[in-house]
Amino acid sequence: MTDIDFDRYDRIRPIRWTGDALELLDQRRLPFQVEYVRCGDSDAVAAAIHALTVRGAPAIGIAAAWGAVLAAREVEAADGVAALAALEPALQRLNAARPTAVNLAWALARMRGALAGAGADWRARLEREAQAIAEEDLAANRRMGALGAALIAPGSGVLTHCNTGSLATAGFGTALGVIRAGVAQGRIDRVYAGETRPWLQGARLTVWELEQDGIAPTLIADAAASHLMKSGQVQWVVVGADRICANGDTANKIGTYQLAIAARHHGLKFMVAAPSSTVDMATPSGDAIEIEERDPGELFGVGGVRTAAENVGAWNPVFDVTPHELIDAIVTERGVIERPDAAAMRAAFPG
Amino acid sequence: MTDIDFDRYDRIRPIRWTGDALELLDQRRLPFQVEYVRCGDSDAVAAAIHALTVRGAPAIGIAAAWGAVLAAREVEAADGVAALAALEPALQRLNAARPTAVNLAWALARMRGALAGAGADWRARLEREAQAIAEEDLAANRRMGALGAALIAPGSGVLTHCNTGSLATAGFGTALGVIRAGVAQGRIDRVYAGETRPWLQGARLTVWELEQDGIAPTLIADAAASHLMKSGQVQWVVVGADRICANGDTANKIGTYQLAIAARHHGLKFMVAAPSSTVDMATPSGDAIEIEERDPGELFGVGGVRTAAENVGAWNPVFDVTPHELIDAIVTERGVIERPDAAAMRAAFPG
Repeated sequence: MTDIDFDRYDRIRPIRWTGDALELLDQRRLPFQVEYVRCGDSDAVAAAIHALTVRGAPAIGIAAAWGAVLAAREVEAADGVAALAALEPALQRLNAARPTAVNLAWALARMRGALAGAGADWRARLEREAQAIAEEDLAANRRMGALGAALIAPGSGVLTHCNTGSLATAGFGTALGVIRAGVAQGRIDRVYAGETRPWLQGARLTVWELEQDGIAPTLIADAAASHLMKSGQVQWVVVGADRICANGDTANKIGTYQLAIAARHHGLKFMVAAPSSTVDMATPSGDAIEIEERDPGELFGVGGVRTAAENVGAWNPVFDVTPHELIDAIVTERGVIERPDAAAMRAAFPG
Repeated sequence: MTDIDFDRYDRIRPIRWTGDALELLDQRRLPFQVEYVRCGDSDAVAAAIHALTVRGAPAIGIAAAWGAVLAAREVEAADGVAALAALEPALQRLNAARPTAVNLAWALARMRGALAGAGADWRARLEREAQAIAEEDLAANRRMGALGAALIAPGSGVLTHCNTGSLATAGFGTALGVIRAGVAQGRIDRVYAGETRPWLQGARLTVWELEQDGIAPTLIADAAASHLMKSGQVQWVVVGADRICANGDTANKIGTYQLAIAARHHGLKFMVAAPSSTVDMATPSGDAIEIEERDPGELFGVGGVRTAAENVGAWNPVFDVTPHELIDAIVTERGVIERPDAAAMRAAFPG
């Protein structure tokens, strides 16, 4: 297989650091307006995270790290220890912007760690750490992309769900990184994206960002996935993850579980691609994950337009759990775990 | 089990004959406006069918029959034979309003048949025939409802898809008729409805009509169905059909096949409820059905609001085929076919 021309297939950057401000691609306005929102201080970053201007667990973590860099300009401190205390209120506000995003707390913990032992250069250290978090995320995604794509036979079609792309990360994406790498290497001929109700991340974001990179995706209704699989046009389902348990059970956007069942029914393969920071060896299995349920009102309309009467009952779980038995491969930047179970996960993540 | 109080659980009528005009409940405006459109001549009926003011195969057939009654007032003819010739242009226009709806052609064929041997009373015969078509449809749905409900154990939850209710028929509905009967008999405690992208018939119509009858449904995203099944809240999936083949393979709204796969995976039961006019013994299996694909633009927005860029590729199949192996019961007004296959279908419909 040819090497991957990463730049050609990865032109979108949701987060830009200008040297004195953070610019965030406003994902609420995509695909109709491509507009960066300028955040000049840490509270503006917290507000942007809260308002979903930036979304996707890795991207939120990176944005928060830059928020900490901006916070450093708002306080006085002689060294790292003093800075840690002075920054704490701003870091807490950043952390509270999306309390359920694991990567947010993880990135802020790294920023706190960078202050340890720092002298008067603590501001520069914070800036280097934020840069490192972003660069490591991009490198991890490119590595994951190459590892995942290597599993896919030339001439394949793939189906993905939600948005796991450049827009959700520092760049390249997780599951979409695998798909980008597979297209670059000539392994993937056809890319299908489920629209992903109720938020339509597939229709609004995934399809748009792939188009920007010259990859022509085909949008489908979530309910059309099994009919697509039966047609023989897809060989792999490739999705991201919000949490991967110690036995390989994987929590991801609602609808993922359904795709895994249908893939197995049709004899197709199912891949999860996510950074190792998504692996949670402290959670034994998917049964231990509490599934977040969001406002039923999200099912009563689209884009501000009401489509159902508002006084009806609705159930709006945001995630579901795919049991490891239905997963053929979990791909992280550390390697591939085929047929994941507790033993294979323990071998890959000895802790 | 108690008898079913049909009137209590069936208050919506999409089609009203006033004696000199046809009134159609405008399903494009539901659930926000409950408004009947008056059709004073046959061309107004054809236009209303074409514009989706009335939808659902049985309801379309009934509306067309009344359209023929209105056409009868627009021509002069001494007897049935002369009327048949005089009416033909209007009948052709009605038939062309939705060329793929089987019930439309079927209802117009019955109206033509009613003219055979008619004398000067041919207009009265047409009116009686239209009335009979409507009454037979309602009676078939009530019978189907009782037959289907008898399969459901008390305390069950059910999941349905699209709209197969009073709104799609003369009243009571097909799959929703089974659900109404099951609720009336205390067999069904929980009713879930998938929103049914891209047209949202579940969100806009099914949820609304059940609410009108005092049945409180719970709306879910189509992608949440498997997560719901895993929760143990549903025991049956109950859906309608657009065509049932000679081996039991069933074409229905896109997404039905996916529900059947997931139901089998979870050990749940899957029921198809449809009038015997939906059975097509001339089509041997689902492989012989050409699946209609509609404008991809339906995936680019909801209710006139754009949600995806319009220049992307999309695939919008309207129906899918559920193979008979995944169906536990087919219910028509003639009886129940458990574990349908070619032999069981032949026994039930000897032709």
